[in-house]
Amino acid sequence: MSRERVSLVLAAGASTRMKSKKSKLLHNVLGRPAIYWALDQARWFSDRIVVVVGHQRDELMKVVADYHLDVDIKFATQTEQKGTAHAVQSAFHEIEKWKLEEADIFIMGGDAFLLQRETLEEFSKVHQSTGSVLSLMTAVLDDAGAYGRIIRNERGQIERIVEAKEASRPELAVREMNAGFYCADWNFLRETLQSVSNSNRSKEFYLTDLVSLARNQNRLVQTLTIPYQESLGINTQEDLALVASIFQKRVNSYWMSIGTEMLSPSTVWIDADVELGQGICLEPGVILKGQTKIYSDARIGAYSVIENSEIGQSSVVEAYSHIKEARVGPQNKIGPYARLRPGAILDSEVHVGNFVEIKKSHLAEGAKANHLSYVGDSTIGKRCNIGAGTITCNYDGFHKYETVLGDGVFVGSNSSLVAPVTIGAGAIIGAGSVITKDVDPNAIALERSDQRELKGAAEKFRQRKKREH
Amino acid sequence: MSRERVSLVLAAGASTRMKSKKSKLLHNVLGRPAIYWALDQARWFSDRIVVVVGHQRDELMKVVADYHLDVDIKFATQTEQKGTAHAVQSAFHEIEKWKLEEADIFIMGGDAFLLQRETLEEFSKVHQSTGSVLSLMTAVLDDAGAYGRIIRNERGQIERIVEAKEASRPELAVREMNAGFYCADWNFLRETLQSVSNSNRSKEFYLTDLVSLARNQNRLVQTLTIPYQESLGINTQEDLALVASIFQKRVNSYWMSIGTEMLSPSTVWIDADVELGQGICLEPGVILKGQTKIYSDARIGAYSVIENSEIGQSSVVEAYSHIKEARVGPQNKIGPYARLRPGAILDSEVHVGNFVEIKKSHLAEGAKANHLSYVGDSTIGKRCNIGAGTITCNYDGFHKYETVLGDGVFVGSNSSLVAPVTIGAGAIIGAGSVITKDVDPNAIALERSDQRELKGAAEKFRQRKKREH
Amino acid sequence: MSRERVSLVLAAGASTRMKSKKSKLLHNVLGRPAIYWALDQARWFSDRIVVVVGHQRDELMKVVADYHLDVDIKFATQTEQKGTAHAVQSAFHEIEKWKLEEADIFIMGGDAFLLQRETLEEFSKVHQSTGSVLSLMTAVLDDAGAYGRIIRNERGQIERIVEAKEASRPELAVREMNAGFYCADWNFLRETLQSVSNSNRSKEFYLTDLVSLARNQNRLVQTLTIPYQESLGINTQEDLALVASIFQKRVNSYWMSIGTEMLSPSTVWIDADVELGQGICLEPGVILKGQTKIYSDARIGAYSVIENSEIGQSSVVEAYSHIKEARVGPQNKIGPYARLRPGAILDSEVHVGNFVEIKKSHLAEGAKANHLSYVGDSTIGKRCNIGAGTITCNYDGFHKYETVLGDGVFVGSNSSLVAPVTIGAGAIIGAGSVITKDVDPNAIALERSDQRELKGAAEKFRQRKKREH
Repeated sequence: MSRERVSLVLAAGASTRMKSKKSKLLHNVLGRPAIYWALDQARWFSDRIVVVVGHQRDELMKVVADYHLDVDIKFATQTEQKGTAHAVQSAFHEIEKWKLEEADIFIMGGDAFLLQRETLEEFSKVHQSTGSVLSLMTAVLDDAGAYGRIIRNERGQIERIVEAKEASRPELAVREMNAGFYCADWNFLRETLQSVSNSNRSKEFYLTDLVSLARNQNRLVQTLTIPYQESLGINTQEDLALVASIFQKRVNSYWMSIGTEMLSPSTVWIDADVELGQGICLEPGVILKGQTKIYSDARIGAYSVIENSEIGQSSVVEAYSHIKEARVGPQNKIGPYARLRPGAILDSEVHVGNFVEIKKSHLAEGAKANHLSYVGDSTIGKRCNIGAGTITCNYDGFHKYETVLGDGVFVGSNSSLVAPVTIGAGAIIGAGSVITKDVDPNAIALERSDQRELKGAAEKFRQRKKREH
Repeated sequence: MSRERVSLVLAAGASTRMKSKKSKLLHNVLGRPAIYWALDQARWFSDRIVVVVGHQRDELMKVVADYHLDVDIKFATQTEQKGTAHAVQSAFHEIEKWKLEEADIFIMGGDAFLLQRETLEEFSKVHQSTGSVLSLMTAVLDDAGAYGRIIRNERGQIERIVEAKEASRPELAVREMNAGFYCADWNFLRETLQSVSNSNRSKEFYLTDLVSLARNQNRLVQTLTIPYQESLGINTQEDLALVASIFQKRVNSYWMSIGTEMLSPSTVWIDADVELGQGICLEPGVILKGQTKIYSDARIGAYSVIENSEIGQSSVVEAYSHIKEARVGPQNKIGPYARLRPGAILDSEVHVGNFVEIKKSHLAEGAKANHLSYVGDSTIGKRCNIGAGTITCNYDGFHKYETVLGDGVFVGSNSSLVAPVTIGAGAIIGAGSVITKDVDPNAIALERSDQRELKGAAEKFRQRKKREH
Repeated sequence: MSRERVSLVLAAGASTRMKSKKSKLLHNVLGRPAIYWALDQARWFSDRIVVVVGHQRDELMKVVADYHLDVDIKFATQTEQKGTAHAVQSAFHEIEKWKLEEADIFIMGGDAFLLQRETLEEFSKVHQSTGSVLSLMTAVLDDAGAYGRIIRNERGQIERIVEAKEASRPELAVREMNAGFYCADWNFLRETLQSVSNSNRSKEFYLTDLVSLARNQNRLVQTLTIPYQESLGINTQEDLALVASIFQKRVNSYWMSIGTEMLSPSTVWIDADVELGQGICLEPGVILKGQTKIYSDARIGAYSVIENSEIGQSSVVEAYSHIKEARVGPQNKIGPYARLRPGAILDSEVHVGNFVEIKKSHLAEGAKANHLSYVGDSTIGKRCNIGAGTITCNYDGFHKYETVLGDGVFVGSNSSLVAPVTIGAGAIIGAGSVITKDVDPNAIALERSDQRELKGAAEKFRQRKKREH
C-alpha cells in the first residue's frame, strides 16, 4: 500500500462558549490537555500531523511541542476564521513540504477525540477499499440540532451536506448528521477546495461543500455511520464534563478488566498516565492524578487523593489521605488523614497515621509516626517511633534546617525537635521536650521542669470565678 | 391585558409518606425549604399568592413569613382534608379580599415546583389566548399509575379526568395523565366549584371534576402537555432526592454555562443562594451551602464543604477543607484539611494549612498557620508565622480570652499562648514555650528548661524492659 | 402441599475473568461475601441447600460454614468442569440423603442473586400450578450476546435452548435468552439428566438440553420472563460494581422508604447489616459498613466513614469523621475530622472535635476533647475538658499504659499526660505541662519554667540573619 497519510487537526477556533481564559484545547481531561487526546487520535491515522492554529496560537504550540512522542508535527496558522474549508486550505503549504503524491488526508476538529480506535480503522478501510475521493463519518440523532444534515438521493447515496444555518425545514427534519470527521484524497482536496465558495448566509467557506463538488464531478463519496457519542466535541464546560466522564468510564473499565476492584466507578477518577498493578482495590471517591503508580495488592481508601506518587506493593492507604509527589514503599500503612507532601520517601513497613504531615523526609523501614505530627526536612532511621504531637521545627523564619534520627530512636509525645539537630541511634526523647542540642546514641534526653502541685487550688479558682459572675 | 392574577398554593396535606416529623414542604432543597421553591414558581404567575395550609399550619406560616420577597401572600386554612376542590374552596375567602373582577387563578400543589419558567409562560398564553374557563397541564407516561387519567372525546377534546382510584380498566390504560397544574377563570371557579360532589368511592371533593362540569356547560377546557419530569411532586424521601438531583443538574448547568469548571457535576452540590464568579474550578465532591460567595479564579479542592462563607479572588482551597461562616480574602492558600469556623476572617495572601482550626480570629495579610494549630479569639498581624502545633489557650473553663499578635511575630512550634496575652510586633517565641505574659515588640521570649542528657540510659531502660518479660 | 424442596447453588466454577486471587463468590457486596447473597436467594425457595463447589473449594466451604442462619446446607464437589448438567449431577448424591419422594429442585448459579423475592415466588407458583417437569426463567434483550437462546415452536411453546456457541445465525437473532434459573421435578431431573450428552462443539454437558429432552417426552416445560437486570451474574469486576450498585439502590430505597433523608443516594453506601432508626439524615458520600447501628434523629456528615459502630440518638457526626468499632452515645457532637478507633466509648453529650483521635477510651457524660488531641487507653470522667493539643502518652516503646481522669478535670492545652497517671476529680492541669505523677483532686498541677524575655533580641537575630546573606 503505497499511499501516504497525513492527519489534519483543526485547532484555530476561539473557545467563546467555554467562558474561559484558556483555550478549550488546553483544558485538562484526565490529567492531559485536550489537544493531546486529539493528537493521540490523529496519530492512529498517521505519524504526520498538521495542526492548524489561530486563537491562542502561541499557548497551543507551546503545549503541543511537549507532546513528546515520536510524531512529525507541523503547524499552520489560520489568521482569520473564514470557515472549515479555509482552515484546511491554511494547511496546504505545510502538507506540501512532505512532497506527497498519492495520499489520504484525515481531517478532524481538535476538540473531537472520542473516536474508538476500531472506528477510525474501519473508516480508513472504507475509504481505501472503495477508492472514494472523500469519506466522512455520520451519526443519527432524533434531533440533529445545529449539526450539518446529510442529504441523500433516492438510491441512498450522499449528495451533499447542508449546514443547519442554511437548511430548509424539510432538510432540518433529516436525522442523519455530519459527525465532522473526513478522509480526503490529497489531489482531490487540493484541486477541489478552491472551488468552495462562501456565497451562503454565513459568508463562510464550508468544507462540507466538498461533498456536492465531488458528486458534481461524479466521484464517489463514502460515509460511515458511527455512534453519536464518538462524534462529540467540546464547546462548553458541560461538554468538557461529559467528555471527561466518557473517558472516566473507558479508563475505569480498562482497569476493572485487568482486575482492579472499585465498587463505585462513577466516583473514581484515574488520570490517563496512572499505572495500576494487579489486585488493587480503590474505594469510593478515590482520585489518582498525574504520573501516579500503584503497585500490586495495594488498597486505597475512600476519598484519598494521590498525585504524581508511588504506592508500594500491599500498602494500605486509609481514607482521606492526601499524597503528592511522594514515594510510599511496600507494606506501608498510611492514614486515614495522612498528608504526604513532595519529597516524602517511605521505605517498607512504614506507618504514617492520622493528622500527620510528612514533607521532604526519608522514613526508613519500620518507622512510625502515627498521630498529629509534622515531620519536615528529616531523615528518620529504621524502626523509629515518633510520638503523637511531635514537631520538627525546621524553619527559623529565614532558612530550613534538617533533623536526623538514627535507627530505633523513640521520640516522646509532644516533643519539639529544633533543627538542625541529630538524635543518635537508640536514643529516647522524653515527652514534651524541646530538643535543641544533638543527643548521643542510646541516651535519654529530656527538657522538663519539676511538676508542681497546688493542693486545692483548682477548687479555689472555681470559687473565685463563680463569685466573679 | 386587564385580567388580574392570583396563584393558589395547596399546602395543607399531611406528609405521611415522608416518615418525617417535619412537613415535606419544610424539607431542604439546595439550601431552601421546599415551599420557597413552590412560592418562586407561583410568583412567576402572580405576585398575589394564597397558601392553603392545614397540617403543620403554624410551622409553615412561620417559614413562609420569612420568604422576604415583595409578594402579597395570604393564608387560608383548610381544617379538614376533604379533597382538592375543598382545598381550593378554603381559599375563596382570602381571594375575595382582593375584590377581583376578571381574573385567572393558577392552582398548584405546594410540593410540585419543577415547572420550567417557559412552560408556565406557555401555559398562561394557551389559557388566555383561547379564552378557556379552565386549562390544565397533562403529561404522558407508559404507565400513569396513581395519576388521574385524561379522557378525551373522538375529536381529541378533553371530556373529563378520572382519578385512578375511580377508573375503569380501559380508563387505567390511558397514558395521558393529569399533571396537577390548573389555570381557572375566577368567576367560573367560584360558580362551578360548589357543584363538585363527593359521591365517589373516596368521598372526596375532586378539583378534577371541574373538567366535566365545564364541558357540560359547553365551555372550553384547554390542555398543555408538558414533560413528565416537570410534573413531579414530593411525596417520599426518594422523591425528595430525585427533585434535589433535578435542581442540582439545573443549577450546575447554569454555573457551567457561565464558565465554571466542574468535571464531576453529579457529585457537586451548590445551594440556590450561592454566587460564583468567573473562571472558578470546583473539584469532585465539593459542597457549597447557604449564602456562600466564591470570587473569580478561585479553585475549590475535592470534597471541601463551604457554608455561608466568602472565598476571595484567586484563592485556592485544597481538598477536605471545611469552612463555615468565614471570610477568606484574595490569593489565600487554604488546606488541605483546613477548618475555618465562624468568625474566621482572613485578609489577602494568608496561608492556613493542614489540620489547622481557626475560630473567631482575624489573620492579616500574609499571615501563615500551616500545620496542626488552633487559633481562636485572636488577632494575628501581618506576615506572622504561626509554627506547627501552636495552640491559643483561649478558655479557662469559664470564659474565652483574646490573643493579639503584632505584625511579623514568629511563633515557634508547639507553643501555647495563654490568653489574654499580647505579643508585640516582630517578637519571636521560642519553640515549645508556654507564654502567659505579654511579650515586648522585637523581643525573644521563651519558656524552657535546660536540656538534660542521661548517657546510655536508653539502652539500660530497654534492657530492663526486656528483662521484665 | 406435600412436595418437598431443595435449592441447588452452583459454585464450582473458576473466576478467571475477575482477575482476582479470590473467588468471585467471596468478593464483598455491601459488606457480605457474594455467596451469602446467593444463599439468601436459595433460602427463599428452600431451607435445604446443596452448594456445588470446585474451584477454591476449601475457602468457599469455610465462608459458607459461617453463614449462621438456620439452614441445612450440604456440599457437593464437582472435581472437573464438564458443564452445568455435570455440575447438577455432582449434587445428586447429597440430595439423595434427604430421601425425597416428590420434590422440586431450584437450580441457580452462585453468582446470580439479583432475583426479587416476588419474582422467585411467582416462579415457584408457575412451576407448581402447571405441573411442569421443568420451568425456567427467561429475559429479553436487544442483543442476547453469549446467552443461550430460547427456541419456541409456532404455538409459542419452548422447544429447546441453544447455547450461543452452538447457535446458527437465525437462532442468534432470537432476543429471548435463558436467564439461568431452573426449577425441576426431582424424579424427572434424576431420570433425564443422564441422557444429556456432550456431543457438541464445546464437549460440555449442558443443563439446558433438559428442555428438548422433556419436550421429546412430551412433557410440559414452563417459562417465566423476568426483567433482564434480575438475571445478571458476576463474571468481571465491572459486573461486581454493577451488582453492588443495584443492591445499593435497593438498600437506599428501603431506608428512604422508612424516612431516612439522603439527598445524594448514589454516593451513599450502606452495608446490608447496618440498622438505621427513624429520622436520620445521611449527607453525600457517607459510607456505613458492617454491623453499624445509627439511632433515631442522628445526622451523619458528608464523606464520613463508619464501621461496626453505634451512633446514639440525636447525635451529630460532622464531615470526614472516621469511626470504627466505637460506641457513640446520644446527643454527642463528633467531628468534623474526628477519628474514633476501636474501643472508643462515648457516653451522652460528649464532644469530640477536629483532628482528635480517640482509641480504647471511655469518655463519660459531657466530656469534651475538641481540638488536635490524642486520647488513648484512657478513662475520662464526666464534664472533663481536654484542651487542644493534649496527648495521652500511653506507650513507652514496650507497653501501653492507662490514663485516668476523674470527673470535671480541666486539662490545659498542649499538655502531655504520661501514663500510667491519674488526675483526681476537679483538678486543673496548666497548659503545656508534662504530667508524670498523679494529681490530687481539686489541685492545680503544672510543669513549667519561668518565661524569659530577651528585649530586642528578635530584631538583632533578624539583622544577623540578613547579614548572613
